[in-house]
Amino acid sequence: MTTAPAAKAPPKAPPKAFAFDVFGTVVDWRTSIAAVAAPVLAAAGRGDIDAFAFTDAWRARYIVGMRAFGQSGRSFVKLDVLHREMLDAVLAELSLDLGEGDRQTLVLGWHKLGAWPDSVEGLTRLKQRFPIVTCSNGHVALMVNMARHAGLPWDAILGAEIAQAYKPAPAAYIATAQALDLAPGELCLVAAHHGDLAAARAAGLQCAFIPRPLEYGGAPAPDLKFEQQWEYRAADLIQLAGQFGC
Amino acid sequence: MTTAPAAKAPPKAPPKAFAFDVFGTVVDWRTSIAAVAAPVLAAAGRGDIDAFAFTDAWRARYIVGMRAFGQSGRSFVKLDVLHREMLDAVLAELSLDLGEGDRQTLVLGWHKLGAWPDSVEGLTRLKQRFPIVTCSNGHVALMVNMARHAGLPWDAILGAEIAQAYKPAPAAYIATAQALDLAPGELCLVAAHHGDLAAARAAGLQCAFIPRPLEYGGAPAPDLKFEQQWEYRAADLIQLAGQFGC
Repeated sequence: MTTAPAAKAPPKAPPKAFAFDVFGTVVDWRTSIAAVAAPVLAAAGRGDIDAFAFTDAWRARYIVGMRAFGQSGRSFVKLDVLHREMLDAVLAELSLDLGEGDRQTLVLGWHKLGAWPDSVEGLTRLKQRFPIVTCSNGHVALMVNMARHAGLPWDAILGAEIAQAYKPAPAAYIATAQALDLAPGELCLVAAHHGDLAAARAAGLQCAFIPRPLEYGGAPAPDLKFEQQWEYRAADLIQLAGQFGC
Repeated sequence: MTTAPAAKAPPKAPPKAFAFDVFGTVVDWRTSIAAVAAPVLAAAGRGDIDAFAFTDAWRARYIVGMRAFGQSGRSFVKLDVLHREMLDAVLAELSLDLGEGDRQTLVLGWHKLGAWPDSVEGLTRLKQRFPIVTCSNGHVALMVNMARHAGLPWDAILGAEIAQAYKPAPAAYIATAQALDLAPGELCLVAAHHGDLAAARAAGLQCAFIPRPLEYGGAPAPDLKFEQQWEYRAADLIQLAGQFGC
């Protein structure tokens, strides 16, 4: 008599739609923002500040700020407002007193980020069979501007502004599924960030991980401690589309 | 000495984005719903009911229902819920006891309406230079399904669900502008309905009228009393795009 194989959890049904983290997963914020920052810093006589280090310092405040926002008790405000506050803090730290126009230029830089080379083709392929939506902390106007700039073919802009809650709060993921008339488990978050995926999983979503080793210019991502076995993993968005027959 | 010409109001700056009414303006709900209803009615042994008359009766309840919703004090619910209630009322009036499956088929018919012949080309052209978004009473899931079905290239799905208010309530129009970071006067509503445009104008939007003489199969529209001089008027969406250099 042979031993029965160990019981395995039944495979989940494939997702009915894909929701995407955007900053870092679909677009390369670091290269784009550094390109906006470099001439601003130079014109301010601070060519000594490395534009990438400046960008990383700004983004580091974002990571902390998003995790803290839900506990702050503060009403939802669009990401432009938070980006501006974080920028002001970075500039104060550097004793760099930029004018209003320069600060606005930098904040609006986040509306025009460039896509990773595989993003437009991967999204376009996936869209043939599945709804593809944003589940980003970027607000609607920012996401619309970015999509028009980078050619991202979203079916809908969902995520933080629709939920009135910032990721990693569960409401940001759940509201995105609800807007699509889906149960959380019918929606798959696609992200390059283990922390984002861990929060999506806790909210009931399926998860797909896409490594973006150049997101921090080759430096390790800050959320490796959240790494785990995700439902799907692909080298890029074209490969992810291929895994779903697109 | 010649007389100075009469003072004219300065022309408004062109809009920065276009928001579209969808049912009737972009898609032909009557032909599509009648095509779904006809086989359902026949299978129920009620081939005596004209599918277009049935569709018109359902839509007539919608027109009244939307105007009444804001005053009802009822919390926002997705349009599928209201379409279902209105359908149930029409069926009761006809003493027609359809099963649950047939009722769902009819309600979901509104997710897959066919575009007017000029809609996809007109929207695609306008999108080259302007963000184009929905400002419909249809919810996000319905609008996503319809866009995928009919090939409508929206930049974002806005309108009632985002606003948590149904047109013609001012909030539906104003929230759509706010989501785009625009003042109401920077947004132009495009609609085939004078009543919708009148409400948009009262909320501060610019207005473009597109006649759709076949919306009611050639019968007059129910809102002609709201007709007035709109900022823009075009025979169809391709001509509207042409008026804006697209």
